[in-house]
Formats: sequence, structure tokens, C-alpha cells
Amino acid sequence: MHAYRSHTCAELNKSNVGETVRLSGWVHRVRDHGGLLFIDLRDHYGITQVMADPDSPVFSEIEKVRSEWCIRIDGEVKARDESLVNAKIPTGEIEVFIRDIEVLGKSEELPLMVFGEQEYPEETRLRYRYLDLRREKMQTNMVLRSNMIQSIRKRMWDKGFNEYQTPIITASSPEGARDFLVPSRLHPGKFYALPQAPQQFKQLMMVSGFDKYFQIAPCFRDEDPRADRSPTDFYQLDLEMSFVTQQDVFDTIAPVMAGVFEEFGKGRKVDAAQDWPQISYKDAALWYGSDKPDLRNPIKMQVVSEHFAGSGFAIFAKLLEQDGTEIRAIPAPTGGSRKFCDRMNAFAQKEGLPGMGYIFWRDQGNGMEAAGPLAKNIGPERTEAIRQQLGLGVGDAAFFLGGKPKAFESVAGRARNVIGEELGLTDKDRFAFAWIVDFPIYEKDEETGKIDFEHNPFSMPQGGMEALQGDPLAVRGFQYDLACNGYELVSGAIRNHKPEIMFKAFEIAGYGKDEVEKRFGGMVNAFQYGAPPHGGCAAGIDRMVMLLADEANIREVIMFPMNQRAEDLMMSAPSEPLSEQLMELGLRVIPQDS
Amino acid sequence: MHAYRSHTCAELNKSNVGETVRLSGWVHRVRDHGGLLFIDLRDHYGITQVMADPDSPVFSEIEKVRSEWCIRIDGEVKARDESLVNAKIPTGEIEVFIRDIEVLGKSEELPLMVFGEQEYPEETRLRYRYLDLRREKMQTNMVLRSNMIQSIRKRMWDKGFNEYQTPIITASSPEGARDFLVPSRLHPGKFYALPQAPQQFKQLMMVSGFDKYFQIAPCFRDEDPRADRSPTDFYQLDLEMSFVTQQDVFDTIAPVMAGVFEEFGKGRKVDAAQDWPQISYKDAALWYGSDKPDLRNPIKMQVVSEHFAGSGFAIFAKLLEQDGTEIRAIPAPTGGSRKFCDRMNAFAQKEGLPGMGYIFWRDQGNGMEAAGPLAKNIGPERTEAIRQQLGLGVGDAAFFLGGKPKAFESVAGRARNVIGEELGLTDKDRFAFAWIVDFPIYEKDEETGKIDFEHNPFSMPQGGMEALQGDPLAVRGFQYDLACNGYELVSGAIRNHKPEIMFKAFEIAGYGKDEVEKRFGGMVNAFQYGAPPHGGCAAGIDRMVMLLADEANIREVIMFPMNQRAEDLMMSAPSEPLSEQLMELGLRVIPQDS
Repeated sequence: MHAYRSHTCAELNKSNVGETVRLSGWVHRVRDHGGLLFIDLRDHYGITQVMADPDSPVFSEIEKVRSEWCIRIDGEVKARDESLVNAKIPTGEIEVFIRDIEVLGKSEELPLMVFGEQEYPEETRLRYRYLDLRREKMQTNMVLRSNMIQSIRKRMWDKGFNEYQTPIITASSPEGARDFLVPSRLHPGKFYALPQAPQQFKQLMMVSGFDKYFQIAPCFRDEDPRADRSPTDFYQLDLEMSFVTQQDVFDTIAPVMAGVFEEFGKGRKVDAAQDWPQISYKDAALWYGSDKPDLRNPIKMQVVSEHFAGSGFAIFAKLLEQDGTEIRAIPAPTGGSRKFCDRMNAFAQKEGLPGMGYIFWRDQGNGMEAAGPLAKNIGPERTEAIRQQLGLGVGDAAFFLGGKPKAFESVAGRARNVIGEELGLTDKDRFAFAWIVDFPIYEKDEETGKIDFEHNPFSMPQGGMEALQGDPLAVRGFQYDLACNGYELVSGAIRNHKPEIMFKAFEIAGYGKDEVEKRFGGMVNAFQYGAPPHGGCAAGIDRMVMLLADEANIREVIMFPMNQRAEDLMMSAPSEPLSEQLMELGLRVIPQDS
Repeated sequence: MHAYRSHTCAELNKSNVGETVRLSGWVHRVRDHGGLLFIDLRDHYGITQVMADPDSPVFSEIEKVRSEWCIRIDGEVKARDESLVNAKIPTGEIEVFIRDIEVLGKSEELPLMVFGEQEYPEETRLRYRYLDLRREKMQTNMVLRSNMIQSIRKRMWDKGFNEYQTPIITASSPEGARDFLVPSRLHPGKFYALPQAPQQFKQLMMVSGFDKYFQIAPCFRDEDPRADRSPTDFYQLDLEMSFVTQQDVFDTIAPVMAGVFEEFGKGRKVDAAQDWPQISYKDAALWYGSDKPDLRNPIKMQVVSEHFAGSGFAIFAKLLEQDGTEIRAIPAPTGGSRKFCDRMNAFAQKEGLPGMGYIFWRDQGNGMEAAGPLAKNIGPERTEAIRQQLGLGVGDAAFFLGGKPKAFESVAGRARNVIGEELGLTDKDRFAFAWIVDFPIYEKDEETGKIDFEHNPFSMPQGGMEALQGDPLAVRGFQYDLACNGYELVSGAIRNHKPEIMFKAFEIAGYGKDEVEKRFGGMVNAFQYGAPPHGGCAAGIDRMVMLLADEANIREVIMFPMNQRAEDLMMSAPSEPLSEQLMELGLRVIPQDS
């Protein structure tokens, strides 16, 4: 017989009754039923009930074992009494009578129980991660992550993509976030950087003729703490293709994403890839107040300025006299009660607004009535026009926000979310996807008036060089995001592969040729030697697992995460270097004021 | 029609004749045949001949294109004349008459030609890697690497392994090589390290109950330059299993390795996994003078001390009077000529030995004669006994080395290699594998007399705690390597999972409990909480690709490698940091003497 096991703890069933078997695993739970000892023996695969009575030759040794000891037992498989069958586990028909036992690994007193649902502070969980990970939920999450990545790889291979590894110790590439630096020993005083993303390398591969690249790529950003992101690194499905249009990229990645969500979504509805709407950045802001709208929520905002211009509601009427202002309505079907409307108004105040005007429609016995202060101010005709535009009726409500869109769009978006949630309009059992397209290439800093890249400086402007001759703020890029349930899951672009257009694009943002060559020299030089049109995207792996596992904290889907102060308490990182190490690197630590 | 291509450059054949097609790719070569222009248009998939005569509406534009311009053409597929068919490429039956052309990316004058076999200095190749990578050999190597890793993943999944990612920004783990450090911004003065290998994490995963882990893992070592290794990072197939013996690990990884070498070995013979010998470290040293023997070479060395003890060959006879000395023979079938023997003797002298004694056997007309100075000195009886022991005959030779084995074993091993090569005994079309087992846990520093770990301190000593009570130098570990064609491809061990045995093992090597807890705290703490027996190994990915691609330089199998001074000339890494960056990290660069 094998030294440790003839079967896993999920394998035995009625067909094994009478066999002598060997199992290894952890003591999940011990129960003493009047002299009979029952142990739930657990391994990665499942749980098997093993037991001993005082007649067992090793009873006294079994009495000693405690929770989370790792043991090996030999024993005989017996059928359970019909009444004792546990239909919930595959081994529930049998139990194993222990004839021999070996303690493979004892355990000290546990700082964290594996059995049961007890909650522990995150610091405890991370310090004793190896115990935390033994819990069923963590095992499930980690296997989900592993299976999901496996599925992604298979789907990409099936589409003719090859996976290539890009350098991890490389050059600083100023892409927005902060780099992690790595001091060079062979070149003291000089530093490498960990890549924020393989952006430049994947584009270089296209220039090298590789046509279809992907990678499950580690990315490194020295970020300030936030609950839903790792302070150090994350993984993305990174892909790039040559000789493609934006639609080709969509047609490639959409079935991969849809397939993965179907495979691991546990029955939740997944919008079919070919039905994902393409919504312009501008429309997304207007309709949903967000460039990553949650389309499970059916609410779509509308511009209703005309109904307030010159109306009796002075605040809005006056507002509309200023340039660039708008009034927008958030329809709230089934939200037609004063109580609900007041609650939303309070929400707006918490968000720092003076409040949120509203109208709601109720049945007053002798027909529909529009209620709320706004309705009174603007009068029945305008109120009715609004109702008709929004397609609302008795029992519904609408909320109104006004001003310069930039100033209130994001609050409007959050109000839309809350309204959808509270009214139960948002379908929780669904993954709703939408492509957000036509991102502006540039934005203007309101304070300094300076034009800078809105997003990624490597995107091809729609209209090419010609478009760059006009108003920079009107230039849209072949740049896109995929939104799912309110999160940005994918981001990408068709790249600017023409050196002359690239230099022009940077010039508009105030970067001279020298600076571009200094910062992105590797890629810009490469574009001088026959660059193909290319584009691609990157999908957030951690975020995908979080959505599929229904977890809000990224640390629930990473095997050994840092805490929010970017420390690994289990491994004691970061730590003080040896002075020899600093010497070799030619570095000195500046003493900190404490 | 698609914006860039209706077909790839490897797709068109006779069945497409008459179709109007669109192709995109690079101008591989232009030939002017008396006014007719022929272009070999190349993409990732292949080459298609496209052509234009002066009647083409775009002839003048086609005249302008140069090597490595990226272009898109439209044209009509025509069959080639029977006499002009190129059977070597899939598109060799057709050519495309160009009707339209678009230049997608022009090229400056090329620093490196893609077409042809011209050699360039490595610095040029790395600086213009995107051109170098367009060459056929590099495309083939990179695709081989990608396909090999894909195959490994599929094979591991089929065996029930899950791939889990381990941290890349983590704690320093002193495993022998030098760490790359990463300064922490949130904790100025403290540093992370990049992992030399996921050793501790994979063991922690076993303690966490994950049972079967693998990862294609990036590993980081700050190494001094050497031709056949990367100065910064490399990839390994890292795996670990719980509840296994050494043989279980062999039975898991051997079919994976054999399968991969069969799949990508281009017909070279691969020894069947079940036939791979298990050779003890001690025997490997004796027989092959190496712990990574090349078994394509059939030569097996033998101890022949008895034939020289008290013989007329004074040098060896005297040597054998000293403790711990031995005479070993390297049989050299078919090496029986004075010319060959003298050449080997010269080889030994070049290696710093006084020379290498030899005997060779020739046919003197009236029977076999043993020739060479040694034969005369020891006389015919002893000479014949040696011949019989080694199983040699007419036309063969044997070489002899003597002294303390440690002192001459490695030279003997190299002599064996040279003899095998020169006599054509080494089968070049074969991958020959052997497990090297029973590595000693400890070694003694000859100068200081200090006992230290020979290899990896985490291996389980054979015989457990009991073995550690005796002579440390006699303790063997459950530790193993897989040798292939003279390279170490895999290295692994059954781990020491018992805290008390681990502390004892470290104590013998002079490390106190405090030090062990400080250096390997994460893992040692975990072992207190029910650790399972576990073991695994790691296989060098880069080395495997090198063997399969028949490349001697690791930079031929890595997409974007560093040069030997650990610089990336294309991306300009490492580079000077900004002073703000140093400030944030609380570091100062010590000015270097120059």
C-alpha cells in the first residue's frame, strides 16, 4: 500500500465497503459520542468520517489527536446506517473504522479555527495564512482562480494566440502610476523598474511580427492603500494583435470573457457577447453618470433642460442661463413615494449636494397626481411633458440634478446605483456587459488650462493626423473599456503606430520630441522600422475572480496577499536590509524623523 | 473586405486562383526581373510572392517600397507556371498580382537585415531586438518556447495539478544566490526582495492543504554574468505535492518531461520515462565524474586500484599508499591509437594535470598487444586483468587517473565527455535522462572543516531524526536531480516537514533556532500547525527550450533578454532614478569612485 494514501478523502463510497484503505488528511473535527470517537478527516478534495471504538488497537492514540493535526489512518470501509447517511458529501454513505494511525504533523494550539464560520481580524488571517487557506471558502476561491485562468488560457490558445513572457526587471515606464524600483548592483546608482504593465513590450512584439500575443501578466504599481486593490501587484490578461480594427479586438475578447463568466458564473445570466452594446464615453456619462455603468440597472438618465428653462423653478431656470449647464433626470420606476424620495434627497445631501429635486406620481382616487415641490414650481404642463419624456406613470418618481455635467455626473451615477438597488430594479443574478468607446484622447486641466492625455497616450486618434490639427478636446481615440456590473473589466486601444502621428499627439500634450524619445524610446524607435497597425487590451484577472466569487475584498482571491500597509506579516516583508547589501548596491538609507 | 487582410501570408494556394485577396505583411525581399517586381511578403505565418508589372495601376508606388516596410496589398491570385512552383512553402503554387497598395509603416535604413543569414554582434541584435526577432530562427524559437510551456501546462492539468501564483514582491529568502531588493516607499529604509524561487510559498501551500501545485514561475537572482544564464531572471516549472514519496514525484514529472521532449524533439530519440536509471550521487561521481552525467555517452568509469597497488608503475603504486586515494579507468572503445591517446594526454595537461596514463590494444599480426608506457610498467598480467575488467579489446584504449577522487573526478568527467565526442560514441540524436539520487545533506569545507548544507537545507534526511544523530557527512537526503545530456534539468526533494528534525538539521550546520526562525520564519512557523509530508521539484524552462532548440546561448530563447552586463539596451535599463523617486524611498546614492 502507498505510504500515505490509497484514496483521497473524497473518493470512498458504498462500492468500497469491506476494503482496507489508507487515508491522510487533517483532523477537521473530533466528536466523542459516548466512547465512540468520530473524526472528520479532511484533505483538499473532501471529508471522510473515520471512527474508532475503545476496542480499536490504537484507540488511546486516537484520543490524543486534536484539530488540524495531520494524520494518516488505515481502516476498514463500512456502510453507514441508512439513517446516518449524509447526502451532502460524496463519502456520506460510508465511514472508516480505524485500525492504525500515524501522526504526520502535530499542531500547536490554533490561533485561528479552520472548522466553523468564526470571523477573525484580517491581520490574524494574513499572519496565519496557511491556516486561513485551509478553510473551505478559501480553498474554493483559490481553485476558482486557478480554473478561471486555465480556462482563459485554453480559450486564447484556441483563438491562435501564443503566450510570451515579457521582462519583469526592466526600465521605468512612466504610465501614470508609481514604479517599483530595483537597484542595480552591477551599475551602482542606477535602477531597474518593475513593469506597470507589459504595454511597451507587447507593442514591440507586434513590431517584431508576432501577430497574436497574450500573457497572464503580473503588473506592479506602488499604489497607496485601498480596499479593493493590492498595494503592490496584480495580474492581467494582456493581449495584442496586429492588422486589426477595434471591432476585431472586440470579436476576439468578448467571447472569451462571456465564456469564462458562463463557465464559472454558477448559473447567473451572462449577456451574450454579440449583444453587448457599444456606448460612447459621452453617452455613458449622460445615461449612467459613469464610464463603467452597471447595466443590470435599467435606469437611463435623460436631459430635461428644456422643461426647466424659463420655468417657475428659479434655481434650475437661472442655472440654465449659464453656458454649458444642463438639467438631467434620473427616472425611478416604482419609486413613487415621498418616503423614498426624501431618502434619496438625503443621500444627495450626504454626497455634498444641496439636495436632489424630485417629482413623483400617485393615484389620488380621481386620477394621477404629480407630487413634490418641483411639480408645483414648474406647473402641470411641464411636469406632464417630463413624465411623458421619461415614460413614467403612477407609482414612479424622477430625480433631477443640474449644473455643469462634469460637476454632478458622478453623483448622478451613484444616485442611479442606489435607486436601482433600493427599488430592486438591479438584477443581482446577471453579468451585464457593455463596451464603452470613443474616449477622448485629451482632457483639459480646469485649473491650469493645460491639455494632457485623458488616458493612455498610445492610442490612435480617430481620424489620424488630420484630427490632431483641430480642437484637441474634440479628438476621440480608438480606445475602449469593457464594463461589467459597474466595474471596468477590460481596457484597450488600437495603438498609434505611426511615429509622425505619435510625435504630434505628444506635442499637443506638451511633450517635445526629445522627451518622448527619452520616456518611450524603445517603442518609438521601433516604430521607425516598419510598424504594423495593431491593438489590444488587458483584462483584470483579480477583478474577474472577485466578481465570480462574489467577493468585495481582493485579498479573498489572492493566495498570499499583502495587507493594506503593503506588508507581508507571515514572511516579514519588507524588512531591514543587511548593510553589506546596501553597500553592494551603493545605497544609503536616509534616517527618517520619527 | 477586412481593412488589412483577407488571408495570412501562409494561406493561399491553387484553390484560391482567381480570387481577389488582401494581404498585409513585411517586405522580406524585392527582386526586379526586367521591369517585373517580385516581393516576398512576409507575416508571422509565412511568405507569399506578390508581383507587379509596369501595367499595374500602382507600379510607381510599389517601386518605392524597401525591405521591412509594412504594407497592405490587394491583388488577384494567379497560378504559377509549373516550372516556377516553390514546393518548399505552402503558398509556392501561386502568386498575387498587385492591384492596390497601402504603406502601413515605412522603415528607416536597417541596422540589421532580416532577410538572409548575416551575423550581427549581440549588442546590435539586442538594441534592435524587434528587427532581430523578425528573423525566421527567432520566430521559430519563440513559438517553440510558447508551445512547450503550453504543453507543460496541459500535461500538469491532466495530472490534477492547479496553477497558483505566488508573490513576486516578497521577503528576502537567503537560499544561496543574491536577492534583488525592492525599496519600500511606505516603509522607508525597508526593502522587499524578488523571490529566488517560490520554495517557501509552495511549501506553505502544502501546509495550507492544496495538495498538488504547479506554476510556470519567474525566479530572480542577482547573478554575475555568464554566457548560459540570464543575469536577472529565469523561469521554472515549479511543482509540489503532498502525501508523496520520492518515487511519486518521479512518476509525476518524468512522463511530463519525456512527453515534452518527444513532442518538440523533432524526431530525436527520447529515453522512455520508465527506463530512466536512478543513479546515486556517489555512483554518478564514480562512473561519470559528474552529478549531471551525459548518458548519451556510453563510457562508464571504473575503479582499477587493485591492478596498480604494488605494481611497477611507481606513481600510482605510491599514490595508493595514501588514505582515500583511488585509481580510476576511463575505457575508450575504438580509441586504440597512439595518436588519439596522445591527444587525450594533451587534453589532461591542458586541464592542469601532469598527464593521463593510458594503455591501448592493437593487433600485431600474431595477436593482441597492449601498448603504451603504463602497460610496460605494470606488466602483461596486470594489463590483461585491466583489459578484462573493462571489457576492452583490439582497437580500444583506457585512460587512468589517480589520487583523491574529489581532486580528479571533475577532470575525469570532462575527459569522458571529450573521449565520447571525439570517438563518435555520443549519440547526438538522443535525449538521455537519469535521476541522480541520494545526495548528501552536508558537506565539509576542506579549509575550515565546517559542516554546511551541500545543497538545499529543506530536504528530509533519509532515516529522519535518527540519521542526524550519527556522522553528518554520511547522511543522505531524499533529494534528487534529473540529468539530461549533461545538464541538470530538474532538481527537487522530499521536504523536511517536521520542525524538530528541521531544527536539528540546521543545528548541525551551525544555525541556532533563533537564526532559523529569523531566516525561514514563515515556513518554520507553519510547520508547527499540522504540516503534511510533501515534496516536489523545479525544472528549468529556459534550459529545456535551449536543448530542444539546440541553442547554446540563453538569449536565443528569451524574447527580450538582458545583455551580459545586465542591461537592456533597447529600453535603457537600468537608468538613473529621479531625485524625487529616491526621496520618496528614503534613499541616497553613494557616489562611486570612477
